[in-house]
Amino acid sequence: MHRFPDYLLKGHANFIAGRYTREKERYRDLATIGQSPTTMIIACCDSRAAPEMIFDSAPGELFVLRNVANLVPTYQPDGGQHGTSAGIEFAVKGLGISNIVIMGHGRCGGISAALNPAPSPLHSGDFIGKWMSMLGGLPDQVGQNDLMTASERQTALERISIRNSINNLRTFPYVAELEAEGKMAVHGAWFDISSGELWIMDSESGDFVRPEL
Amino acid sequence: MHRFPDYLLKGHANFIAGRYTREKERYRDLATIGQSPTTMIIACCDSRAAPEMIFDSAPGELFVLRNVANLVPTYQPDGGQHGTSAGIEFAVKGLGISNIVIMGHGRCGGISAALNPAPSPLHSGDFIGKWMSMLGGLPDQVGQNDLMTASERQTALERISIRNSINNLRTFPYVAELEAEGKMAVHGAWFDISSGELWIMDSESGDFVRPEL
Amino acid sequence: MHRFPDYLLKGHANFIAGRYTREKERYRDLATIGQSPTTMIIACCDSRAAPEMIFDSAPGELFVLRNVANLVPTYQPDGGQHGTSAGIEFAVKGLGISNIVIMGHGRCGGISAALNPAPSPLHSGDFIGKWMSMLGGLPDQVGQNDLMTASERQTALERISIRNSINNLRTFPYVAELEAEGKMAVHGAWFDISSGELWIMDSESGDFVRPEL
Amino acid sequence: MHRFPDYLLKGHANFIAGRYTREKERYRDLATIGQSPTTMIIACCDSRAAPEMIFDSAPGELFVLRNVANLVPTYQPDGGQHGTSAGIEFAVKGLGISNIVIMGHGRCGGISAALNPAPSPLHSGDFIGKWMSMLGGLPDQVGQNDLMTASERQTALERISIRNSINNLRTFPYVAELEAEGKMAVHGAWFDISSGELWIMDSESGDFVRPEL
Repeated sequence: MHRFPDYLLKGHANFIAGRYTREKERYRDLATIGQSPTTMIIACCDSRAAPEMIFDSAPGELFVLRNVANLVPTYQPDGGQHGTSAGIEFAVKGLGISNIVIMGHGRCGGISAALNPAPSPLHSGDFIGKWMSMLGGLPDQVGQNDLMTASERQTALERISIRNSINNLRTFPYVAELEAEGKMAVHGAWFDISSGELWIMDSESGDFVRPEL
Repeated sequence: MHRFPDYLLKGHANFIAGRYTREKERYRDLATIGQSPTTMIIACCDSRAAPEMIFDSAPGELFVLRNVANLVPTYQPDGGQHGTSAGIEFAVKGLGISNIVIMGHGRCGGISAALNPAPSPLHSGDFIGKWMSMLGGLPDQVGQNDLMTASERQTALERISIRNSINNLRTFPYVAELEAEGKMAVHGAWFDISSGELWIMDSESGDFVRPEL
Repeated sequence: MHRFPDYLLKGHANFIAGRYTREKERYRDLATIGQSPTTMIIACCDSRAAPEMIFDSAPGELFVLRNVANLVPTYQPDGGQHGTSAGIEFAVKGLGISNIVIMGHGRCGGISAALNPAPSPLHSGDFIGKWMSMLGGLPDQVGQNDLMTASERQTALERISIRNSINNLRTFPYVAELEAEGKMAVHGAWFDISSGELWIMDSESGDFVRPEL
Repeated sequence: MHRFPDYLLKGHANFIAGRYTREKERYRDLATIGQSPTTMIIACCDSRAAPEMIFDSAPGELFVLRNVANLVPTYQPDGGQHGTSAGIEFAVKGLGISNIVIMGHGRCGGISAALNPAPSPLHSGDFIGKWMSMLGGLPDQVGQNDLMTASERQTALERISIRNSINNLRTFPYVAELEAEGKMAVHGAWFDISSGELWIMDSESGDFVRPEL
């Protein structure tokens, strides 16, 4: 049971023979010079929504934090071990990132758990419910809308949550400051797993629209 | 400044024309049936160490949590908002994951910050120092070893930290239980950015060795 | 001022030289044998959402009723002059239609008027407000959802209204009966003017999804 | 039975690959800027008489209301839900339309039902008879003319009904007013399904004549 999974080893062999061989110089430079990504992506852990796949990214391009449901808390410098906040601080202060993208996605299990408080393995645990409580009353508000179908409520909360995280992100003083100075931009995006399409949040209206590609 | 970065849109267009087109059926099935990854990877936010690249993964294969320096805290069901613990709970209880891999990497910025408490933008912040304090006295212990070069100390702490996270992971009761029952395995791995190689932790000795590919 | 618009005459000359010439036989047969469409479409008057364009239809294929915001009232055999109900009766009893599609669309002016009761030329009139009142309390319920953007509320009501019209359609005894006997099906659809895409309502969940083409 | 009709999906795929692809810019502009048609067409639901086909129209050109037999009621601001009147109000007050065309056609089923009160599925219903009663005593008057063939009576009533609707349209105060000011024109037209020809009503005499194309 403690053998490293074979399929991962095979995948890694493919990486070495393929991408690494093709981009060897790039990897060496990235090791020597260090990383200098200009964009941070805050995404979900979901196995279907890897930013590097969705953006067909090269190594070194994206600084990627992934947590359940791509949530950003408010700025709380209370001495606690805030992993997401540490990632944001690292990206902004350590790397001088100029874009932060909060990327949600369809059929998100964390959002679903927040919307459906029925007893399930996810609710008997100690952490998921607490983590999703970062959304405050939003799941209840959306959940009460019985004019929308279950799937429409799910999509609505996925997008409302992105807007909420963007608001929270702006409570970080340096984010607000850099954005005001025009040195940083904060973006929202939502990935449709089924169609493969990315929807971009309009920064004025908060609407999600499909960009021309 | 609020325009969504062009290079991301171009990358996404490549994804749609390339990988998505080739794997359309897979994406549709993943959307309809849901994700059922068997492996969780806990990795760093570093732009050079994306698990999906390193393991040449297909969509749906890896449930990936990424935080600064791929740290796992101990089990602390204290009602706080623990993002990494929520991710572990989701993977184990929600998805029935059978492998968890903690993957560190060379030249890790978080590990470097922990080892070098010299004044820097990263130390004046509110979150990174606190986050790395999860390593307790380990950075100090390694840092005092002046027989090793700075680079050796860096690599050493990167690997020590992986073993530390594995220990912390086993403080989660269900992880310990499932592992004891032979239903789950916990692995360590370390990625060398420069050579592209993955080093696998031997589960008995804790050593990192290069697997035959 | 009473001259018939020139551009319509030119368009008609194009029709005669083009489509009519190509499909002369079909038009003659349709005149002689009569129409026998199998599908009724209830659509909006909007100039951007003509069913025959969207479905690239041939003459004789679609029986099309168009009113403001593609609304269907409940069955009210009260002796009033109900135009939409007359159209449904004609399609079902006169033509033996086997499919009825209620097709809404994005940026619908009628839905917008229902959502935005601010004074405007549309509200000072005698008929539009009354007509849209067929939606009952739905616009108010959707309008109060301040978690959604104005555009999201608009799309939500467009789709909720389609589901509402489908429910109303089923209050017509013969529609309910034929549907129960498996001789007729009722469908919802929503047209995105900007992308040209049609979204189809899932008959189980009420969700709108893009079909594979 | 609840599957969306395949031929509609195929037609839509043709639309996307054909017209939409050719006029993509136009659709995008129409979505962004909004519709601004200058002409409203009031036509019949008949599957053989789609205005967009007959006038070879571009998207955005025609605001189209379609009911059984293209009837316009008199202005009745009695608080009832008058769909056709709501469409006229929307066109005139909301869109500032400058032309309204009432377009009838040959072999109209609604006109036929009004002329032939013999028992038929259409007469046992609750709505069609009531709807056609908008023509008052006209069908009886035409029906009693046994000098005309059945087909001639049919064509005659189709045209008489258009003139009747034009008169009714002028009972809408704003229509009469705008027409008097020379800001709007009201037109009649009649489409011959078999020959494909459009006959235009002479505004002075009320005659229907074939225009030079």
